[in-house]
Amino acid sequence: MIISVIGGSTAKAEHVELAEEVGRLLARRNVMVACGGKTGVMEAVCRGAKAAGGLTIGILPGRTSRESNNYVDIPIVTTIGYARNVIVVNTGDAVIAVGGAFGTLSEIAHALGDGIPVVGLSTWKLSIKGDGDPIVDGVIEADTPEDAVDKAIEAALARLRSEGESAEAAAGAQYDR
Amino acid sequence: MIISVIGGSTAKAEHVELAEEVGRLLARRNVMVACGGKTGVMEAVCRGAKAAGGLTIGILPGRTSRESNNYVDIPIVTTIGYARNVIVVNTGDAVIAVGGAFGTLSEIAHALGDGIPVVGLSTWKLSIKGDGDPIVDGVIEADTPEDAVDKAIEAALARLRSEGESAEAAAGAQYDR
Amino acid sequence: MIISVIGGSTAKAEHVELAEEVGRLLARRNVMVACGGKTGVMEAVCRGAKAAGGLTIGILPGRTSRESNNYVDIPIVTTIGYARNVIVVNTGDAVIAVGGAFGTLSEIAHALGDGIPVVGLSTWKLSIKGDGDPIVDGVIEADTPEDAVDKAIEAALARLRSEGESAEAAAGAQYDR
Amino acid sequence: MIISVIGGSTAKAEHVELAEEVGRLLARRNVMVACGGKTGVMEAVCRGAKAAGGLTIGILPGRTSRESNNYVDIPIVTTIGYARNVIVVNTGDAVIAVGGAFGTLSEIAHALGDGIPVVGLSTWKLSIKGDGDPIVDGVIEADTPEDAVDKAIEAALARLRSEGESAEAAAGAQYDR
Repeated sequence: MIISVIGGSTAKAEHVELAEEVGRLLARRNVMVACGGKTGVMEAVCRGAKAAGGLTIGILPGRTSRESNNYVDIPIVTTIGYARNVIVVNTGDAVIAVGGAFGTLSEIAHALGDGIPVVGLSTWKLSIKGDGDPIVDGVIEADTPEDAVDKAIEAALARLRSEGESAEAAAGAQYDR
Repeated sequence: MIISVIGGSTAKAEHVELAEEVGRLLARRNVMVACGGKTGVMEAVCRGAKAAGGLTIGILPGRTSRESNNYVDIPIVTTIGYARNVIVVNTGDAVIAVGGAFGTLSEIAHALGDGIPVVGLSTWKLSIKGDGDPIVDGVIEADTPEDAVDKAIEAALARLRSEGESAEAAAGAQYDR
Repeated sequence: MIISVIGGSTAKAEHVELAEEVGRLLARRNVMVACGGKTGVMEAVCRGAKAAGGLTIGILPGRTSRESNNYVDIPIVTTIGYARNVIVVNTGDAVIAVGGAFGTLSEIAHALGDGIPVVGLSTWKLSIKGDGDPIVDGVIEADTPEDAVDKAIEAALARLRSEGESAEAAAGAQYDR
Repeated sequence: MIISVIGGSTAKAEHVELAEEVGRLLARRNVMVACGGKTGVMEAVCRGAKAAGGLTIGILPGRTSRESNNYVDIPIVTTIGYARNVIVVNTGDAVIAVGGAFGTLSEIAHALGDGIPVVGLSTWKLSIKGDGDPIVDGVIEADTPEDAVDKAIEAALARLRSEGESAEAAAGAQYDR
């Protein structure tokens, strides 16, 4: 299982601590960690995962693996800039958001739009005016790293079960090379 | 000048009306309209722009121009799925959001993250818990299509002035083929 | 109809002349020109098209419309780097290649892989060793700009006819926002 | 070190054998294998790598990890279709091409355009008419899987040495989230 952790490249000490603990707990549960591969929350979650012997994937925006933080095991050099945010969330079976600014908000939105569960730790609160948007399907709030990891793994398992056949079908013909 | 208009592919009648009027007003101001090229708000804004003799650009997610609505003059076939949302907002000198669901939210977030002004008509309200995010730089609210178009054109002009040199420099070396 | 013209950003005088004439002839046939929006062959084909009153689309790799050449009417700011080459060819109903280096070769390959006809003017010659690749479906060679434009328009019309229903179906459900 | 192996999704038995042996040899040299994650040569190289205890990365075009072959350890769900070919080659410190059709040709071209060394096993032969293209910097031909792996690792090491500082600089400022 892969869980993507998203958050700002410049993060408050509070969020860095939360992200590092999330990484540690995911690694202890034998879950691989994917992230944007850079600084702040991304570096913290990788550092935590490595401290617990986990495997980390950094999905980078630029054109060289040298831009990844020092705790990324597998740098994916996308070259497509912030459009890589879509890849960060789709690579996770579920997503955990820690704090974050606009880049993180774009990832939360892409995930929710694609039916990928998002668990939040002191991150964006969403509300819409006028539109009957099912915000009941929005971010699942968590109070602690333990709570976030439990809810993310549970949501990922539920998603994997429910999407089985449909996803299988969708995947099939679409791209054959 | 190009202004991108974003909103849901399934939109309430209220938002369809607002989008169509926005398209009409942008065309009357000789502003080209860019959008995701599909149904709902995207189709409405193109229909409005065409009714006023404007030019419409549809930045499509799929692999054929046949997926565009009937009011798109210039279909851009990106083939990259929802990652095309990044292109929709970056192609605009400013963005107007009308209603919208998660896809629209991802576009608002990408735009604000890239410093592209966003004017909103009954769309997402953003707030963040814990993080000192400068939400003062968030969506510029508008009350009517007229108000939205005025504010978007004003913001686009201000951006074009301020970004002149810096953007020039940034653009230069980066990609030479 | 849109025809994409591809070639190097640094081009020999011979190729610049060919590209400019291709742009002029496409505009005279009321065909819109799409290209990568930058220098060399891209600038030449846009200059030719504008000289004949045509419309030009520049599908840019970077993060600002300022990187486009002076003859682009509609700058598409993709922000995704050279991955935008896929968008350049898919946006055309057919492709004309003039000279070109590796970037052009990647575009020829993406086009042929996606069943988009490619007409070539003194461009890459392809051959494969060992693999039974149907290179009979490769680049359609042309001798002059007139010949290239005739063959490209003919191939585009044939493709539009043949792909009608199938493309319709493919486009349908896939992306609904 | 990561080396990307590219080739057709429908491959001749001869190419499947070559790819499987390439995967086995890369794993024995403790090199991670990246590929497009699907069938044919992609599946063969992953199967070979796993047989020798290696780690495999599948950079998928579609929207679900279910489209990956059974020997992919780390599925990257790009959602961007064939534009993901750019990511496949940029994620490798060097590339090995085995046979292949147009998709493979697009990857060879993107790699050479980005200065990523490409070693070929019975794959495309490139030549250009008219253009003074430095085809001396083209595909490095190899005769056997052993020869291909030796040359790819050597080229990757040379590239890592030479690009050190320049890449560092390039990576820096460009994307800060």
